[in-house]
Amino acid sequence: MLAGIHVNASCGGQGVCGKCRVIIESGTVEGGESERLTEEEYGQGYRLACKAMVTGDIQVRVPSESQIDNKILNIQKPSPKAGLMIPELGAEWLRERDLFSPPLETRYVECEPPSAANNEDDLTRLVRHLREQHDERQLDIDFTVLRKLSDEIRKEDFKVTATLRRAVRAKNRSALINVQAGDRRLSNYALAVDIGTTTVYAELISLESGAVLAEQGEYNAQIGYGEDIISRIIYATTKPNGLAKLQEVVVGTLNNVIKELCRRTEVDPEDISHMTVAGNTTMTQLILGINPKYIRLSPYVPTASYYPSVHASSFGINVAPHVSMLMFPCVASYVGGDIVSGVMGSGMYREDPLTLYIDLGTNGEIVVGNKDWLACAACSAGPAFEGGGIEHGMRATRGAIEDFSINPATCEPMVMTVGLAKAKGICGSGIINTVAALFEAGLIDERGKFRTDLNLDRIREGRSGLEYVLAWAEDTQIGRDVFLTEVDIDNLIRAKGAMFAGYMTLLEGVGLSIQDLDRVIIAGGFGRYINLEKAITIGLLPELPLEKFTFVGNGSLLGARMISLSNPMRADVGEIVSKMTNFELSEVPSYMDYYMGSLFLPHTEKKYFPQITERIAQMHELVGRVCSQAGEA
Amino acid sequence: MLAGIHVNASCGGQGVCGKCRVIIESGTVEGGESERLTEEEYGQGYRLACKAMVTGDIQVRVPSESQIDNKILNIQKPSPKAGLMIPELGAEWLRERDLFSPPLETRYVECEPPSAANNEDDLTRLVRHLREQHDERQLDIDFTVLRKLSDEIRKEDFKVTATLRRAVRAKNRSALINVQAGDRRLSNYALAVDIGTTTVYAELISLESGAVLAEQGEYNAQIGYGEDIISRIIYATTKPNGLAKLQEVVVGTLNNVIKELCRRTEVDPEDISHMTVAGNTTMTQLILGINPKYIRLSPYVPTASYYPSVHASSFGINVAPHVSMLMFPCVASYVGGDIVSGVMGSGMYREDPLTLYIDLGTNGEIVVGNKDWLACAACSAGPAFEGGGIEHGMRATRGAIEDFSINPATCEPMVMTVGLAKAKGICGSGIINTVAALFEAGLIDERGKFRTDLNLDRIREGRSGLEYVLAWAEDTQIGRDVFLTEVDIDNLIRAKGAMFAGYMTLLEGVGLSIQDLDRVIIAGGFGRYINLEKAITIGLLPELPLEKFTFVGNGSLLGARMISLSNPMRADVGEIVSKMTNFELSEVPSYMDYYMGSLFLPHTEKKYFPQITERIAQMHELVGRVCSQAGEA
Repeated sequence: MLAGIHVNASCGGQGVCGKCRVIIESGTVEGGESERLTEEEYGQGYRLACKAMVTGDIQVRVPSESQIDNKILNIQKPSPKAGLMIPELGAEWLRERDLFSPPLETRYVECEPPSAANNEDDLTRLVRHLREQHDERQLDIDFTVLRKLSDEIRKEDFKVTATLRRAVRAKNRSALINVQAGDRRLSNYALAVDIGTTTVYAELISLESGAVLAEQGEYNAQIGYGEDIISRIIYATTKPNGLAKLQEVVVGTLNNVIKELCRRTEVDPEDISHMTVAGNTTMTQLILGINPKYIRLSPYVPTASYYPSVHASSFGINVAPHVSMLMFPCVASYVGGDIVSGVMGSGMYREDPLTLYIDLGTNGEIVVGNKDWLACAACSAGPAFEGGGIEHGMRATRGAIEDFSINPATCEPMVMTVGLAKAKGICGSGIINTVAALFEAGLIDERGKFRTDLNLDRIREGRSGLEYVLAWAEDTQIGRDVFLTEVDIDNLIRAKGAMFAGYMTLLEGVGLSIQDLDRVIIAGGFGRYINLEKAITIGLLPELPLEKFTFVGNGSLLGARMISLSNPMRADVGEIVSKMTNFELSEVPSYMDYYMGSLFLPHTEKKYFPQITERIAQMHELVGRVCSQAGEA
Repeated sequence: MLAGIHVNASCGGQGVCGKCRVIIESGTVEGGESERLTEEEYGQGYRLACKAMVTGDIQVRVPSESQIDNKILNIQKPSPKAGLMIPELGAEWLRERDLFSPPLETRYVECEPPSAANNEDDLTRLVRHLREQHDERQLDIDFTVLRKLSDEIRKEDFKVTATLRRAVRAKNRSALINVQAGDRRLSNYALAVDIGTTTVYAELISLESGAVLAEQGEYNAQIGYGEDIISRIIYATTKPNGLAKLQEVVVGTLNNVIKELCRRTEVDPEDISHMTVAGNTTMTQLILGINPKYIRLSPYVPTASYYPSVHASSFGINVAPHVSMLMFPCVASYVGGDIVSGVMGSGMYREDPLTLYIDLGTNGEIVVGNKDWLACAACSAGPAFEGGGIEHGMRATRGAIEDFSINPATCEPMVMTVGLAKAKGICGSGIINTVAALFEAGLIDERGKFRTDLNLDRIREGRSGLEYVLAWAEDTQIGRDVFLTEVDIDNLIRAKGAMFAGYMTLLEGVGLSIQDLDRVIIAGGFGRYINLEKAITIGLLPELPLEKFTFVGNGSLLGARMISLSNPMRADVGEIVSKMTNFELSEVPSYMDYYMGSLFLPHTEKKYFPQITERIAQMHELVGRVCSQAGEA
């Protein structure tokens, strides 16, 4: 890690996930063996990086399956397979509604230079001219202005551009936060940032035009310290300086993103004057250096829901010292600022249709409601949707199997990978599609167990039970078979079961059923790639007409963009949080009933998936006939 | 300087004052010779530290005359020679007037611990209980609270002490700035600080009782970079990293003072929650790291008059991260926060008597007025009052000649030194007393020139003209004669002339004369030791009945103490500043006339000092007779 190379580490260095395989090419290390490595691999020099102690100079090769690839994050996004994207809102939409009113505004001031007759101090002079020329009154002063004021105001003969930070509510005082020589009114930029557990995305926005100049994403370097929130919290609270380390590395990622945004747009970082950050509760506390320990301990109490505005640079973020960082407020330990931001970005909080908002991920968050009310819940789905806890699971980077189908004629699979490269593993959407296809084809039953009577090469006994070979070694990048095990399928079923039980319990809690929903919004980077039909087939998404589903993509980033451009919408944030009733699912007895019932494909009770159950039965009959013919041939 | 040893350096390392003499005991240095050193001294290894370049390991001895001695700052203060001290105000005075209302208050809260039924975040919980148990509403939150809140609140079962910072005006929002486990209401301390060009003084105050627990002073380590404000500004603006260096060293001094205060009182530095700092405009800008360049350049414009409250720790000050530092506002480049604080500490701004407030020092500041109006001016007296620009001048530390008289029978002098030690040099009050005594004795004339017809050993021709030997080498600590030169006397006359011209011009500007004054308040560390009669004799102070004079000591520190204990008085600070009309003396033509007339003892015009002129004439006649008899004997 010190060499700055990021290696997969789903378990946060606990030695149990086996994802951080490296090959020792020269030199020796102590330890690093694991039941996750075969004897043959051990002989070839494979070790788990997290368990190995370096005892001298060594050369290490990081095999492709252990690498993290940032490129995939910044390619043109494909459209979702089905369902519509929510229209991305921006400056134009805001202007039409008279809502375009960024939290920062610039004012150009020509001050009368000091003289013996009037040698008032520079600040008084500037403030006076702001009052006289722009009717700006009652300004608070950011201390950082004083550090540069006297030099800056003299650079262009007492002509300066002042940057004013507006309070959320117009009646409150504005603050003078920056002063720059000359007329710099057009150079006024903001960053909207989404700090995810897996990725950090940011947009560079012109506060003058409202245009998004560029978007950039990078994997959160905290991944090297654990793939999910729980392993990060454990790292932060049990390792020496763990919290400081995690704070530092996520800031490092953010700094890379900012640097790249400025490079691509040729914007001077000094002209960035504002930052809005949305993240889940743990990411928010980690980037602020706030101990996340109690988020993980029952009764799951975060430190705060609202955060005071802070100076970003004091957290190591490479922006000018006057730049404020506005954090989205959180609702609960597992319903964070990213969800609040997503609800804002999706627009559901200001519209009539009764909407179910689902953020699919390790931490599945669910919101239901409309402009009148909002209720939310979080359910711990586990990492399966992001390829975690899956033998050959990986994130949706190059070589990840993302689609899978079975040729009914040959019973042979067809796999499609990200970037159309040779297979390296399987990503979350790939697992859903594969399990759905295996289920439709009757190769697994409703409990997710393989049929052993089919006499297929691809179904075989592996180290952890039965497994299905998705790609043979010669067709992969890793020189080993890529397969899916019954344990993997079980992990997926438990993940989708947690999500289903989550939204059913929440709907029940507010006295509604699936049929009452006007709309389902799927959020999250992973959600964007999901095949709706397959997701309904396995019982992850509710059985509703496909036209009721829409995708919001990175709703969290969208929400951050909106409040970077609109003070009135910033005021809405507080309203969203205070409206949102949080349900602690672990406290609702029926959650466990829903969960147990969902540990089947699609569900034990036909009533929740009547059409799917019917269709599967027909397909099984058909496929059973075809496959058994093929088996006989 | 890197070894942390402070050496005198009046000129800021320009090589002209000759005060930084050191003796090279072994090893060699390049340079360090000066016309300020005799050939004999050069042969003995004397060099000027500021001009010498170290080229290898050396051993250096700092002779006593070049050392700075902090001890003198913390001994019991003697009462002034004549005139009354202004009563020092404190908590009792404030309580009697219902003004005791410190900017910080503590509240003890017993929160209901979180449960599954109520797992609201820690901050919301605390804020709710503050509302329920103490009716505290609308609290701003200092970010530093979030860093510690979750751990701290759990240490003693959700029982905590909250520290609230009150706004100046009660209607404005308070801020939650600290939270500590258990009941810590009694541990609530503040620092009142006076950052002087020469000394840094601070008081540690209990905000519960209002008692001043200790006072501590130390020489401002910036002295090593120049003795007066102008040399500091030159250092800050012309040397590489000069500003950062001066910022760092004054903070170093302040940190020493804080450490010593905590040691003496056994107060945990973590329990200090507030700081109030008064300093002149340059000291204020330097400790905040604000470029002071334009203070020195006509038309003498400071960066700001009001300073936003800042976190002290972000400037390197060793206090907890939540501690705010409140800076006294300044009126002009040479009428700073120390004067505003002094006007507050002296009480003149809320009383009827028409008062002249004089802060004697290198930068002489003058305020005139009462509760209805205030006018102020600054005059550059030069460093003579603090021993600067005087051949054997020194600060009032051990061995400094502070009193001087002439035995009329023998015409021999009697000198008295600080600490009754052997003489080392002469301090500001010593110079005034000596010049007054020499003048009364007729040894110098009204232009400050020595009589050469008296045939006294002690009056002799020296390197820079005539000089008077105050102590022979065998009676000194430095092994050399201590003497006063005509050039020294001339420097004093110009300093007192500047002060006299200053207050006369200011009084004229507001249409008043000396006779209209009800009271004269003398401020400043140096002022405390002054002999009023002698100061009037040389024409420094106006000829008024002695009972009209009072001393305020460190008025600046007193003012800082008052607003550490009283929010209503903090509100007065803004009023004082907005009331104070500043006169730029350089812009008033009559200033130069007054100044030219004051370059005599006591003045060219008898009307300003009628009684003194009369008395001196009588004494000259008497002493002339006695001395000439002694000379003949």
